Amino acid sequence: MSLSDVITGDRNEDGIAAVVGVLKQRFGERLNTGVSMREQHGHTTTYLPNQLPDAVVFPESAEEVRDIVRICADHKVPVIPFGTGTSLEGHVNAPSGGICIDMMRMNRILKVNAEDLDCVVEPGVTREDLNVHLRDTGLFFPIDPGANASIGGMTATRASGTNAVRYGTMKDNVLSLTVVTADGREISTGTRARKSSAGYDLTRLFVGSEGTLGVVTSITLRLFGIPQSITAGVCPFPSVDDAVNTVIMTIQMGIPVARIELLDTLSMRATNAYSGLNYPESPALFVEFHGTDAFAAEQAEQFGEIAAEFGGGDFLWASEQEERNRLWKARHNAYWSGLQLRPGADGVTTDVCVPISRLGECIRATQEDIEETGLIAPIVGHVGDGNFHVMLLIDRQRRDEIDMAEAFIERLTERALSMEGTCTGEHGIGQGKKSVLVKELDGAIEPMRQIKAALDPDNIMNPGKIFPPA
Amino acid sequence: MSLSDVITGDRNEDGIAAVVGVLKQRFGERLNTGVSMREQHGHTTTYLPNQLPDAVVFPESAEEVRDIVRICADHKVPVIPFGTGTSLEGHVNAPSGGICIDMMRMNRILKVNAEDLDCVVEPGVTREDLNVHLRDTGLFFPIDPGANASIGGMTATRASGTNAVRYGTMKDNVLSLTVVTADGREISTGTRARKSSAGYDLTRLFVGSEGTLGVVTSITLRLFGIPQSITAGVCPFPSVDDAVNTVIMTIQMGIPVARIELLDTLSMRATNAYSGLNYPESPALFVEFHGTDAFAAEQAEQFGEIAAEFGGGDFLWASEQEERNRLWKARHNAYWSGLQLRPGADGVTTDVCVPISRLGECIRATQEDIEETGLIAPIVGHVGDGNFHVMLLIDRQRRDEIDMAEAFIERLTERALSMEGTCTGEHGIGQGKKSVLVKELDGAIEPMRQIKAALDPDNIMNPGKIFPPA
Repeated sequence: MSLSDVITGDRNEDGIAAVVGVLKQRFGERLNTGVSMREQHGHTTTYLPNQLPDAVVFPESAEEVRDIVRICADHKVPVIPFGTGTSLEGHVNAPSGGICIDMMRMNRILKVNAEDLDCVVEPGVTREDLNVHLRDTGLFFPIDPGANASIGGMTATRASGTNAVRYGTMKDNVLSLTVVTADGREISTGTRARKSSAGYDLTRLFVGSEGTLGVVTSITLRLFGIPQSITAGVCPFPSVDDAVNTVIMTIQMGIPVARIELLDTLSMRATNAYSGLNYPESPALFVEFHGTDAFAAEQAEQFGEIAAEFGGGDFLWASEQEERNRLWKARHNAYWSGLQLRPGADGVTTDVCVPISRLGECIRATQEDIEETGLIAPIVGHVGDGNFHVMLLIDRQRRDEIDMAEAFIERLTERALSMEGTCTGEHGIGQGKKSVLVKELDGAIEPMRQIKAALDPDNIMNPGKIFPPA
Repeated sequence: MSLSDVITGDRNEDGIAAVVGVLKQRFGERLNTGVSMREQHGHTTTYLPNQLPDAVVFPESAEEVRDIVRICADHKVPVIPFGTGTSLEGHVNAPSGGICIDMMRMNRILKVNAEDLDCVVEPGVTREDLNVHLRDTGLFFPIDPGANASIGGMTATRASGTNAVRYGTMKDNVLSLTVVTADGREISTGTRARKSSAGYDLTRLFVGSEGTLGVVTSITLRLFGIPQSITAGVCPFPSVDDAVNTVIMTIQMGIPVARIELLDTLSMRATNAYSGLNYPESPALFVEFHGTDAFAAEQAEQFGEIAAEFGGGDFLWASEQEERNRLWKARHNAYWSGLQLRPGADGVTTDVCVPISRLGECIRATQEDIEETGLIAPIVGHVGDGNFHVMLLIDRQRRDEIDMAEAFIERLTERALSMEGTCTGEHGIGQGKKSVLVKELDGAIEPMRQIKAALDPDNIMNPGKIFPPA
């Protein structure tokens, strides 16, 4: 992992000029080559450098996406799909220039099939817009990665988040896709059937492919009934291990916890200061249970008993919405309160995921690493999945701090791999973790490259992502 | 769909002779060329003709699988992986001859990680053996396709079955794989992490690829805690539509039913006769709920209320194992009792899966088709997923009956496609549904072919399956 992975990339100047000309004629004002617009569409969320596309185009239909891809394919010019730009590993950078396709105008909810608990949406729909739209149907879409990301972007990065322990990730909740492939054809990867054994699972191949195999033009999603009752609570623990052991036991007992989030001591200290709270300054679990009134309460009670066995302090829980929000305020504000630990600093967020039996050990070793390095870096985890985030507070203008962050992330990912884990649970590879992916999957990189070359022989679909140069 | 899809296939006689010679030297008694052994390893479960491999080899390790694939690759000779031979669409036939790799000796349970709720097994382990092995850990592996299939075969066909409505299919329960690819290398597709965004989802690509992309050598599976309590019941309904509407409401309400199975009137009549029962001769739902004592009972009570709303008759349910078994006896015997509807006939089983809102309509139209055609064909469905099976009772020796069955299956699959469903929910494509797959996925066939050609350029991995000739 090094910035050198990012800055390479040959530019096809003639092709780019030709494509920009053709697209300008075709899309007029919907093709933008202004620097500020292009800067907004390069990578903006971590220390990776911003690499601008040559133009940003705003299609309004799958047909227009097909046309854009065909024009780019004719001239072998890169195509970079863009949702809301909240990805964290340089997924939307344009290391070889090219055309950014901003999906924001393709934001229609095409169909809600309430009886089948599914819906069909365009990629520019955000998860919050979708849930507002669904409210009257009694259904909701559970995947919540934090940011109000677009469904297309969440599909591309295989996003998950707080609810994944109960409802799964995008992999589990995309029923099928339509995709414009590198040759400019639109294909459908499946049907609305809940399950299928019909051929290769192209749906799952495109989910998480980070725009490198095609541009998603519609997504059929699973939906869930809004639970009759929700209980939410928070419980402090003497140590991260006690908290993690509580998580393990909760899951082994089959308690279908909907969210189970860990904040470490530093995060709790930050949130007390930021939100004027007075939680114990020790690791804490934030939990949420869904079900009938009786069942959601039963789950909370069972969890409380398990927590007590592992030395948990007062377990506060509630069913009433206002009180639930109050209890979870610390978790909801974790990002903003974390930033205040070093005013003026930037947050660089990374994630790994390990088997849950190794989670306590992995977090402890990471905390020791943070302390030795002298970094300020709160930890927040979707611990039901063994997934946790470290937010490094650094000054992105300082090369020495970027180097320190990069070296830390390298140690963190190697630690996760040494524990049979993965270098990213939900953020993806993008540009930032290409060399780590090789360490993780080794021999599997070759078939991935073969698939990429077969489906995109000219390497026009979001080039420079996922794979290091062969 | 026609038998002509099946009978083509060029034979590489020189290559086959060379490979059999080399393997005989290397494996001695573990390489078998006897006709009866080879016949057992061709397709035996429906009307499709039996196409024998040229030899059957029994490896005992991944290294041996690698060697076999390398030898076959050197001579461009087909490799057909074989589990227990219970697949239903000709998956194990050898239309171009070649080497059948029987996995039965690779039946070790390599590791059980109880804290992480996962295990690693060799492909020859059967699901029943796995669950016997797990019993003392308090964990179980839920996927139950009926037959005591091998985990490798279930992976290859993306199997599911009665528990899928709650626990998902093989797609959801395989965490990662090791696979020997067509070039004779062994790769690992992932880690033991519960979720990952690291690169293309090769795990899901190999799950359901029917041996056409590689030979699976180990499987890391998710496990679940054995529920504290199970309740099971049976309820008759005036019509299939009433039963299906009960299913829709049950799922919309978020009741996490573990199994919900439909038997049609003909199946109920068959089971009454076969098992000496006196259930009403009308469609019935068989249900099972998992959870704590209180929760499993609550689910059963809620289901009973919903069933009553839709005209359901007496809903009998129980928590005690003996009584549960008694209630579910009709479902467990459905296959054998169905066969007795036409003594001496063979059962040809097919499946489709549609959005649940169309399920009642699809089953009704199918029953009318059965009646018009004069077939005897009971219907059993995993209705929580919209998936149902038709067992055609025919004489496989009679060409006219085979033709009638084929024409019926073609109409059935087209009916499912016209309702936004899939031509197979859990059986796979094999040889039997190749032409239907083209109708279902159309433009997506080309990327599938491209992937196949990229990963297996000489087409040695289980050739003649999934894709019709280009």
